[in-house]
Amino acid sequence: MNEFFQKDIISVRDLDKQKLETIFDATEKIIQMDPNQRREIARGKTLGYLFFEPSTRTRLSFQAAIASLGGTSLGIADIASSSAQKGESLADTVKIMSIYSDVLVLRHNLDGSSRFAAEVSTKPVINGGSGTEEHPTQAIQDLFTIRKEKKKIDGLKIGIIGDLKYGRTVYSLLYALGHYDVEVHLISPETLKVRPDSVYEIKKRLSFTESTNIDEYIDDLDVLYVTRIQKERFPDEEEYLKVKGSYVIGLDMLQKMKDNAIILHPLPRLEEISTDVDNTKQAKYFEQAEYGKYTRAALLGLILNRDGF
Amino acid sequence: MNEFFQKDIISVRDLDKQKLETIFDATEKIIQMDPNQRREIARGKTLGYLFFEPSTRTRLSFQAAIASLGGTSLGIADIASSSAQKGESLADTVKIMSIYSDVLVLRHNLDGSSRFAAEVSTKPVINGGSGTEEHPTQAIQDLFTIRKEKKKIDGLKIGIIGDLKYGRTVYSLLYALGHYDVEVHLISPETLKVRPDSVYEIKKRLSFTESTNIDEYIDDLDVLYVTRIQKERFPDEEEYLKVKGSYVIGLDMLQKMKDNAIILHPLPRLEEISTDVDNTKQAKYFEQAEYGKYTRAALLGLILNRDGF
Amino acid sequence: MNEFFQKDIISVRDLDKQKLETIFDATEKIIQMDPNQRREIARGKTLGYLFFEPSTRTRLSFQAAIASLGGTSLGIADIASSSAQKGESLADTVKIMSIYSDVLVLRHNLDGSSRFAAEVSTKPVINGGSGTEEHPTQAIQDLFTIRKEKKKIDGLKIGIIGDLKYGRTVYSLLYALGHYDVEVHLISPETLKVRPDSVYEIKKRLSFTESTNIDEYIDDLDVLYVTRIQKERFPDEEEYLKVKGSYVIGLDMLQKMKDNAIILHPLPRLEEISTDVDNTKQAKYFEQAEYGKYTRAALLGLILNRDGF
Repeated sequence: MNEFFQKDIISVRDLDKQKLETIFDATEKIIQMDPNQRREIARGKTLGYLFFEPSTRTRLSFQAAIASLGGTSLGIADIASSSAQKGESLADTVKIMSIYSDVLVLRHNLDGSSRFAAEVSTKPVINGGSGTEEHPTQAIQDLFTIRKEKKKIDGLKIGIIGDLKYGRTVYSLLYALGHYDVEVHLISPETLKVRPDSVYEIKKRLSFTESTNIDEYIDDLDVLYVTRIQKERFPDEEEYLKVKGSYVIGLDMLQKMKDNAIILHPLPRLEEISTDVDNTKQAKYFEQAEYGKYTRAALLGLILNRDGF
Repeated sequence: MNEFFQKDIISVRDLDKQKLETIFDATEKIIQMDPNQRREIARGKTLGYLFFEPSTRTRLSFQAAIASLGGTSLGIADIASSSAQKGESLADTVKIMSIYSDVLVLRHNLDGSSRFAAEVSTKPVINGGSGTEEHPTQAIQDLFTIRKEKKKIDGLKIGIIGDLKYGRTVYSLLYALGHYDVEVHLISPETLKVRPDSVYEIKKRLSFTESTNIDEYIDDLDVLYVTRIQKERFPDEEEYLKVKGSYVIGLDMLQKMKDNAIILHPLPRLEEISTDVDNTKQAKYFEQAEYGKYTRAALLGLILNRDGF
Repeated sequence: MNEFFQKDIISVRDLDKQKLETIFDATEKIIQMDPNQRREIARGKTLGYLFFEPSTRTRLSFQAAIASLGGTSLGIADIASSSAQKGESLADTVKIMSIYSDVLVLRHNLDGSSRFAAEVSTKPVINGGSGTEEHPTQAIQDLFTIRKEKKKIDGLKIGIIGDLKYGRTVYSLLYALGHYDVEVHLISPETLKVRPDSVYEIKKRLSFTESTNIDEYIDDLDVLYVTRIQKERFPDEEEYLKVKGSYVIGLDMLQKMKDNAIILHPLPRLEEISTDVDNTKQAKYFEQAEYGKYTRAALLGLILNRDGF
């Protein structure tokens, strides 16, 4: 029996290196599989989605993943704005959805929501992003992209730039990187540095530098992971405009980078990567989005099949 | 040819005891069927849903049902808030949807909407809840749950408690119970008693008591059917708070009940059943939700297949 | 290899007579096909829809079409009102959706949006209505309906009535009719005549009369194509009420028409065709809606299969 069979995916903290590698290997298998064969993996299975925060990309990625496995999906794309909820508790909503589906994906603004959902659900629950720190399937997707594009993870120099304070993606990625022998450099405005309490655990296994200036590391990075800087996060616009420029990745920045470096972004992207970077060989964020479909398909395949696929 | 083939399901009044039993038997068959065999029942068929009132549970239940039969679903989940309607008449919307699907489910706030829809539709129409009284598939689900959990319906003592005035579920359930030899006790605040005109017909076939006090009957009931009491229904909050307590089913109430009694609820549940009741053996409302998927699948299977399945 | 394989459908201007006839012939084949055989045409394929303007009919028509071919659909039904967009560019949204699907349908308020989308998409893009003039799949549906119901297009006298200024349907239809030898009469209030710049190209190949009075042509028409007159378009209500009556097709108008004339409408219909016309043999607008499902299925089948189907 494979170790993911009928198991929840709640936190990146539950995924050790061996588990991550199992998912990555399964993803490679998914990619190489004949589509007809792939459609047998979850034939007749139903994915239920419960999105308390809207997230088009994560939802569509899961829907495309289950469809590619021959399954189907149903659920609620934006519960908060749905008048249908009528004040029902999260527990009841999850219990009902677990009746209608074989596996659930939950997106919720509260920390701990997915673990709670897994406790009341009769079907496996996948955390599709929760609270301030957890987005395990995004971290899987990010690491797989690095492994696929750089042929390895160990030994790499990885820069993460942007708003590191508020993005849950960053914390999940950092935690997962802790299983590998990597050099990590965090670059952000002073006011948007990672939250000390959120990286307290991470620091035990992963050492990283923190800086406000990308120029210190840019020429040495193998991977540059860019996240959004949201205007709303700044107390006044002056402040925003001051830092904005130095965190936009354009062709000028690209010239300072190693020739075989790669640029990633969890998307959606606003102005933090200029569009003329898109067609360079370093730009791998759309490949990253595509791999997200395959890593999720692999995960669903493992969860739904006793002996894997 | 089975009697439901290509027929509408508009009103609980069209379902006599024999028809109900046919659906119940088909539901048992659905439950026991091999999933692969089940997916042949509506292979390639499309369910179209038109929800003029949002109803997550009813919609998802139908979507899960048709998916389990190998079919697919499409439609509009919340027409009222859809800017796409542009003032089109119900008749035209139904006619168009009957072009896109093999069977339709309609939820609408107006009495008579489903019968009207059935008249203009070229495909069978199922009433997914309409107006003040009709919710036939909920009544089927409720009665099936009683039959499944109590092994019979005749001879049972059934209490129905809560807001009996405004819930369409209650009227459909009472009507269907009229086909059986049951003892029914209605318990509600004075201001939320059943509407006399709505039970005029029902009274001809079903005798029931009406009371504001659950204690009179609680120790004798085989089935307790709980419905929501909505704060908004009360003229002032004082009034609400006064009655609220006596209509909440908790462990204390449970202790007064027969050991083998069952508690049902159409869901969503707010505070009218306390969550510590959920894990008792009497609580059957989540089973009830699950049976709803199977009764709807049975109904769809009968409607879509000339000789049943 | 069929000429539509992996090709975009952006503008009615890209469809010459031979291409239109290829689609019409494929549509006839779809209509006559055994449903089981039809479901092999796009087995396992995914249609992605991106609707920046809501359009229930066009969306459901495409969803029903891909479902009838054995495929599935996913996407965003109303992006403008979706909080999930977070300011992402059209290019990025399209690129992401082209990862999740095998063919895309885009509805957008801007002229040129579909051509732009096709340039950035890695999958074929179908224009599901854009800007002020383009709705190629509606034009295909309209012409197929005429061909199907009148057994020919050449030689027909076609009246188009209503708001001809603002309906994108009208311009696409006129352009497509330019490939045929037809006599076209445009009938509209003075203020809602076709925009001269938009028909500049069309006039080179298609001659048409313009009039405010339907009575001049009504008894001679083979096809009457009715479009909505929207109250909002008029500077004041007086003006609206003045013209409204003369553009409503009722039984009185029908009596003036040739016995074998047909009445079409792209739907949704408000008051411009009275409902007592619906059951006459001339009313073909619901057939038109049904043919829309088949023409879209044919198009998808051609785009997704190298050697057609």
